Amino acid sequence: MSALAPVIVAAAPELQVHSFGAPNTGDAQVAVCWNPPAGALRSLPELRLVHAIAAGVDNILCDPQLPAVPICRVVDPYQARAMSEFVMWGALHFHRQFDQVLANQRAGLWQVPAQKLASDCTIGVMGLGEIGARVAADLLHAGFTVKGWARSDRTLPGIQSFSSRDALPAFLSGVDILVCLLPLTSETRGLLNADLLRQLNPGAKLIHVGRGEHLVMDALLAALSNGHMDGAIVDVFPNEPLSPDDPLWRHPKLIVTPHMAAIASLETIGSQIAENVRRLMRGEPLNNQVDVGQRQ
Amino acid sequence: MSALAPVIVAAAPELQVHSFGAPNTGDAQVAVCWNPPAGALRSLPELRLVHAIAAGVDNILCDPQLPAVPICRVVDPYQARAMSEFVMWGALHFHRQFDQVLANQRAGLWQVPAQKLASDCTIGVMGLGEIGARVAADLLHAGFTVKGWARSDRTLPGIQSFSSRDALPAFLSGVDILVCLLPLTSETRGLLNADLLRQLNPGAKLIHVGRGEHLVMDALLAALSNGHMDGAIVDVFPNEPLSPDDPLWRHPKLIVTPHMAAIASLETIGSQIAENVRRLMRGEPLNNQVDVGQRQ
Repeated sequence: MSALAPVIVAAAPELQVHSFGAPNTGDAQVAVCWNPPAGALRSLPELRLVHAIAAGVDNILCDPQLPAVPICRVVDPYQARAMSEFVMWGALHFHRQFDQVLANQRAGLWQVPAQKLASDCTIGVMGLGEIGARVAADLLHAGFTVKGWARSDRTLPGIQSFSSRDALPAFLSGVDILVCLLPLTSETRGLLNADLLRQLNPGAKLIHVGRGEHLVMDALLAALSNGHMDGAIVDVFPNEPLSPDDPLWRHPKLIVTPHMAAIASLETIGSQIAENVRRLMRGEPLNNQVDVGQRQ
Repeated sequence: MSALAPVIVAAAPELQVHSFGAPNTGDAQVAVCWNPPAGALRSLPELRLVHAIAAGVDNILCDPQLPAVPICRVVDPYQARAMSEFVMWGALHFHRQFDQVLANQRAGLWQVPAQKLASDCTIGVMGLGEIGARVAADLLHAGFTVKGWARSDRTLPGIQSFSSRDALPAFLSGVDILVCLLPLTSETRGLLNADLLRQLNPGAKLIHVGRGEHLVMDALLAALSNGHMDGAIVDVFPNEPLSPDDPLWRHPKLIVTPHMAAIASLETIGSQIAENVRRLMRGEPLNNQVDVGQRQ
């Protein structure tokens, strides 16, 4: 918050911004937060809006005492582009076998990997919101065969889309690289489990950029060690940061990245919050309001 | 040749295909080659066409006894796409600091790299032929700022293009990532030297997918060790393969790849050669004939 407060004030000088829990926050009408302590929002009697600082709001929705006020999130067009960059790097890393090429470099081994057509590599994207749709479209543009899965039906040009749990087997069948961009809800928690991973193509890879709680890590490690899967890039973990002695850092088939895939810019966060506070004060519809009923 | 011969025969069963230097090749009218021994082509009195098996023909043009017959090369649309994949991986690798992130993983260090806009990263592409133009367009689509340099003037939408040696300083100024896709000619041999590398932005990176002889390796190593440059991906070397004890394999700022960036498919090579042989027999214009006068 310390870095964000001056950015919000710069975008809306008429607002008073205080740190969470400071003595003078009792009359706050808007709470700006990412991971508020359970019950903290309930302690603000004047609260009219909870504004997240990111696209994901699972850390807010899990508060059992969450007040019944609108919840808004930040939707940063650059964040979708940044996510697409990260996933594209990972997809090309696996498609062109850079994992093997970098290992060969360490061994001084000159071995040209087989070169396959991108269209022969099927990428399954789970989560087709603003960010997932952008990621899927960019992968399609790069020549990959792309399938998508989302909670509700989506129509995206050139992408075979599936929805509902019943369609998971059809979605997973033939997938060489699985990308998880889902929001975290009670329905998606633990969804990437042994049963799901087993339905991917032999030698499949995972790019996990959703939330740590989507993935049953032991199931991934088992699939990597029994050879059914051949690699994974994991950017999100239930407890972040990973401690320096966590064995995941040293797994030869795992690329561990520090929750870096897509960070919204401070300026975008500040200006979207300022705009929504002004809309609240004028009684206008809010931007990027979360449909709480569906998400929980 | 052993793998290619049956592919050519499959595409043109009427042709007789023999290995180079076999006893019955004296009346060969077409030579299919990549790196023929000096003088070998001159020994074929009936020769009417030299057909390369790739886009680059420098290994043929350097023959001082090269017969005055047409020289054709293979132009594989997928080869341009494969090159674009390789360069895109490298550009994203540097732009999103995966070089540092992978090193941090080895150290168990959770450190989120600063996230910059792709448009704030300027990529300079040297060589704007069929492959270079495709690479530049794809980098532009991904959001990078792209400049181009070629032997002759090129107009590519959204790309600031330069030509001639005189324009090199203007082209190099502000470049964060330099991509070399040039053909090897007497003019481009050794072009990537200390003077050129010095004109890149501080902290610049190199993605070298041209020919080994373009790059003065000692100049690159000096720029990496004095800190002016911060990384390089080198896919081509004057002597390939690198021997297992070559110190380049172990340079911490260098990614060594085994001349893998873009390989034409055997089927494409075979069918393009078969088509050109038929055109030759029918007296029709040849596809992808090299302008030898300009290239030497």
